[in-house]
Amino acid sequence: MRLLDKIDSPTDLKSLNESDLTVLAEELRQEMIDIISVNGGHLASNLGVVELTLALHRVFDTPTDKIIWDVGHQAYVHKILTGRKDAFKTIRQFHGLAGFPKREESEYDCFDTGHASTSISAALGFAKARDIKKENYHVVAVIGDGAMSGGMAYEAMNHAGNSDSNLIIVLNDNEMFISQNVGAMSSYLNKIRTDPSYDRRKKDVQKFIRNIPCIGSSMAKAAGRAKDGIKYFLVPGLLFEELGLTYLGPINGHDIAALEKVLHQAKQKKGPVLVHIKTCKGNGYEPAKQSPDIFHGVGPFSKETGEMVKKNAPPTYTEVFGRTICELAEEDNRIVAVTAAMGSGTGLNNFGQNYPERFFDVGIAEPHAVTFAAALALEGLKPVVSMYSTFYQRAYDQVLHDVCLQNAKVVFAVDRAGVVGEDGKTHHGIFDISFFRTIPNLTLMAPKDENELKHMIHTALTLDNPVAVRYPRSAGVGVKIDKEFETLPKGKAELLREGQDITLIGFGPVVNFCMEAAKQLESEGIQAGVINLRFINPIDREMVTAEVQKTGRLVTVEDHILAGGMGSAVLEVLEEEGIQGTAVERIGYDDYVEHGAIPLLHQDCGLTIEHIVSVSRELMKNRC
Amino acid sequence: MRLLDKIDSPTDLKSLNESDLTVLAEELRQEMIDIISVNGGHLASNLGVVELTLALHRVFDTPTDKIIWDVGHQAYVHKILTGRKDAFKTIRQFHGLAGFPKREESEYDCFDTGHASTSISAALGFAKARDIKKENYHVVAVIGDGAMSGGMAYEAMNHAGNSDSNLIIVLNDNEMFISQNVGAMSSYLNKIRTDPSYDRRKKDVQKFIRNIPCIGSSMAKAAGRAKDGIKYFLVPGLLFEELGLTYLGPINGHDIAALEKVLHQAKQKKGPVLVHIKTCKGNGYEPAKQSPDIFHGVGPFSKETGEMVKKNAPPTYTEVFGRTICELAEEDNRIVAVTAAMGSGTGLNNFGQNYPERFFDVGIAEPHAVTFAAALALEGLKPVVSMYSTFYQRAYDQVLHDVCLQNAKVVFAVDRAGVVGEDGKTHHGIFDISFFRTIPNLTLMAPKDENELKHMIHTALTLDNPVAVRYPRSAGVGVKIDKEFETLPKGKAELLREGQDITLIGFGPVVNFCMEAAKQLESEGIQAGVINLRFINPIDREMVTAEVQKTGRLVTVEDHILAGGMGSAVLEVLEEEGIQGTAVERIGYDDYVEHGAIPLLHQDCGLTIEHIVSVSRELMKNRC
Repeated sequence: MRLLDKIDSPTDLKSLNESDLTVLAEELRQEMIDIISVNGGHLASNLGVVELTLALHRVFDTPTDKIIWDVGHQAYVHKILTGRKDAFKTIRQFHGLAGFPKREESEYDCFDTGHASTSISAALGFAKARDIKKENYHVVAVIGDGAMSGGMAYEAMNHAGNSDSNLIIVLNDNEMFISQNVGAMSSYLNKIRTDPSYDRRKKDVQKFIRNIPCIGSSMAKAAGRAKDGIKYFLVPGLLFEELGLTYLGPINGHDIAALEKVLHQAKQKKGPVLVHIKTCKGNGYEPAKQSPDIFHGVGPFSKETGEMVKKNAPPTYTEVFGRTICELAEEDNRIVAVTAAMGSGTGLNNFGQNYPERFFDVGIAEPHAVTFAAALALEGLKPVVSMYSTFYQRAYDQVLHDVCLQNAKVVFAVDRAGVVGEDGKTHHGIFDISFFRTIPNLTLMAPKDENELKHMIHTALTLDNPVAVRYPRSAGVGVKIDKEFETLPKGKAELLREGQDITLIGFGPVVNFCMEAAKQLESEGIQAGVINLRFINPIDREMVTAEVQKTGRLVTVEDHILAGGMGSAVLEVLEEEGIQGTAVERIGYDDYVEHGAIPLLHQDCGLTIEHIVSVSRELMKNRC
Repeated sequence: MRLLDKIDSPTDLKSLNESDLTVLAEELRQEMIDIISVNGGHLASNLGVVELTLALHRVFDTPTDKIIWDVGHQAYVHKILTGRKDAFKTIRQFHGLAGFPKREESEYDCFDTGHASTSISAALGFAKARDIKKENYHVVAVIGDGAMSGGMAYEAMNHAGNSDSNLIIVLNDNEMFISQNVGAMSSYLNKIRTDPSYDRRKKDVQKFIRNIPCIGSSMAKAAGRAKDGIKYFLVPGLLFEELGLTYLGPINGHDIAALEKVLHQAKQKKGPVLVHIKTCKGNGYEPAKQSPDIFHGVGPFSKETGEMVKKNAPPTYTEVFGRTICELAEEDNRIVAVTAAMGSGTGLNNFGQNYPERFFDVGIAEPHAVTFAAALALEGLKPVVSMYSTFYQRAYDQVLHDVCLQNAKVVFAVDRAGVVGEDGKTHHGIFDISFFRTIPNLTLMAPKDENELKHMIHTALTLDNPVAVRYPRSAGVGVKIDKEFETLPKGKAELLREGQDITLIGFGPVVNFCMEAAKQLESEGIQAGVINLRFINPIDREMVTAEVQKTGRLVTVEDHILAGGMGSAVLEVLEEEGIQGTAVERIGYDDYVEHGAIPLLHQDCGLTIEHIVSVSRELMKNRC
């Protein structure tokens, strides 16, 4: 029987001794490798926080004391230790445990996270609520050095540092966020961690102070005060101290005893405290330690070799985007790429290697990325900002106010649009049509397949206004990729199939569902037309109205929430064009969507060929 | 003839001597006071940067060198000096000069600003574009200490500090942003500026170093290195130095010679430089110096006394909100208020005075404000976040991801919804319906008048989900304010007027236009019904469908962009309820809206009683 099998709640941890803890840490790592190698998930970050999680739950009295996991993909150990050991095998699966903290899952999850850099804001909110209610508990935010590059973290530290509320920030410094160090903060942390001269200087100054000879009294006073000054200089983490936080560290984050000691210290301090710990992503599993970026978020892999289970699938949209942008950049040296710690995730690795001078990974800083790109565009460069749909939510104002208001010709590659699968609610890209289409000057496109994506990226770069191109996280349809680029006519949809009885409009790869549905309907004697919409703003009013007037029946299909989405844009067209009397059904999501494999989610929400067919059949009963 | 009359472009500044400049500065101040006392505008901040603007245009070669004005409301002097002297009298008026930098207005305006904290991102974009294109010019961002509290500024510094691109950041530190110091960064700047012990310590250490006696060689080495360490400590602005910026200052920002000297120094430095200057908001005009918050953005005032020109108008929505929240807070001590440097602007001054422990002004940090509020709500408090519509754009992800996803019961008071008048494009609140209504769990409300606002704020606090209440920047309708609070039924609209021929639906105070239009239509024999929609999500499907089925004709009216707005939500309802054959017209905006007095903007965009009447008449020709 494993030690782990006896741990049902954090209380069970308190009686363990140091050697038990070492054994338990090993068992936790093994458990995670076993499950994640099958389910996929965030491995490297969780291997890095095993000791930290044990120390936190031993030193603090959870769930009374609150731990907020920034981003939250590193909360697996926490989940296993807080009553979810048996359920852990279902992690990230449909109707299984979520891959991120969820209040609805456990009282130990006090704040839902998913997007980076929110934990200090939340922790300060808990701390202030506690103080107002005159309660008494500890609040701990655990934040990585990567998330520390996000502006919100600074905003929250700026607020916390000027407040006297007790609050502990554990800076989990694994010297990389997702893939690599970016930014001055990261260099700063690196200096504290490793700079030998920093250490030497500290020793020199200490020695020097010890040896100052006896001198006259006014000189002595000055010396005494100078000592204060020098002491002040000696504090590592001065940047945090300057912001009003008490800095403790750096501490080896794999040494449980050292961790517990510093956390106990932190508990005693008044006001906001920052505990700087150093951990190693992937610690305890060699393949993950060697390639923490690959093992950040993984699919199934071989436990023994660390090799990914290969699927025989067409290239993903992300891969096609990555190749396309490299091809285009070779021809046009004005093309530059900007991302926010998603270089690898959005397929920009090759671009970054080939064109380092034209590649900007700004860290987890979406607002800055977009406004930075606006200026690049105004100077005649052709910036392509490449981020996930869900993270554009963080740069909505910058897209609207800094790019589109001055019509800066930025291209937004919107990866992970639609449901993204196992990462779930916090990561689905199902709001971008609504928030992009309302912005003046911004053209929005979506390709039906990976070949069209190639042409759309090219087309986007030829347009005279800002453009967003949305495409999903998944393998392409498997179509042949053209060699030559094609410039798609702006604002023109593609009529894939003529129809007399009903019109199906799709935006993005769901167009293929529409085509399949049309074939099935044909076998039932219903002639369904299919429009690949391609563009919103401008939308192809001519084709939409012509087809809809012909059939009188319309089904819109989108991998997106219904409120304000593509179907809604089509309804607006019908109103503006004065088309009355059309029977319409819109297919899409009507709420946040759960986590699980994408096909299961589509099934669950009616984004299927069968559902399109049945909705169409129903509409056929209506009017003729 | 004034000296100012001879200045047509920055070139004319270069030959002036120190005493000329003093005279010119005075003339510039007088010019601004003359015009702004009539037009209204941002006075205090512009009086503070007269010398800085002169120095910048003398030291730098604009428009080749680029100056980016953060926020941009302090660019009046810049406008006067760059060929817009004669047009200045039209500032902020309809079809006149904009109150913010505008590329379309002048080649000297290189980047449109309006929202805070974007300038360093933009400047870095220009700098990188320059380097890629191997061009050679200077880029200067001018940013206030207030805007420095925004996370984007930190994201950009984090990027700049790790880059070797030449870039100058002028930190215009006027010890307040809009109204007061908030946050640790502000305390930090204050320490550099004023702490006498900081200065004394510096002198002590210098004296001490000068006097260290001759000592043995190993000791001497240690001492030498210690000197380095001490020097390191001596640098003020260490926080910026730690982030990789070269710090220069602090400098008196009203001393042109000193400013020019430090700017010349900054020009010589390699890499990113931060020049810290101290200015006084309102400098040179006593009333503005005494009350810089009042003179931040003002309406017309008496030049002699500084007294505001009083209008005989009903209380504004902002004032009614401010009173309401105080009344409610007196009864319920769980109510707390959160704002982001808009305490005075959103009417929270009294709340802040009465309940300092329950009032949080977090600085210009909208994302943090919202996530902070989410945690307060999860702990059972009742946070009311109060910000302008246009600034909610910056916290869209936090509303969606941190509040609504976990159904945290936060109330969002959305002030300045609809067009805001003279501040123009960057500040109109015409996107919030679209971006809020797409978010699951979030109820959106808008009152038809100030009395209904009172009841809506009360109602919002009784609901079991997050709620946003939008209301405009303007005087109320002048209705009587009820003493008692009324709880409005969730999701229920108000049928203000029965109609047989056509249905008018309004959301917010435009409902009153609908009522007036209905009266005029009646005189023409057209019976128009009027619905005060009150709620979106849930929307009153029952009433909307019942009325529309009765009349077959519908006009929707909103102080908002059409794409994805309220009318769009109504179209979705008609689709979902299977109501076909309705003749619909939606009235609202179809693009960014210019600046100018609100009634002129409404007129220009067809948001008028006359337009509602004429659209209704047209629809009457359609179907019956």
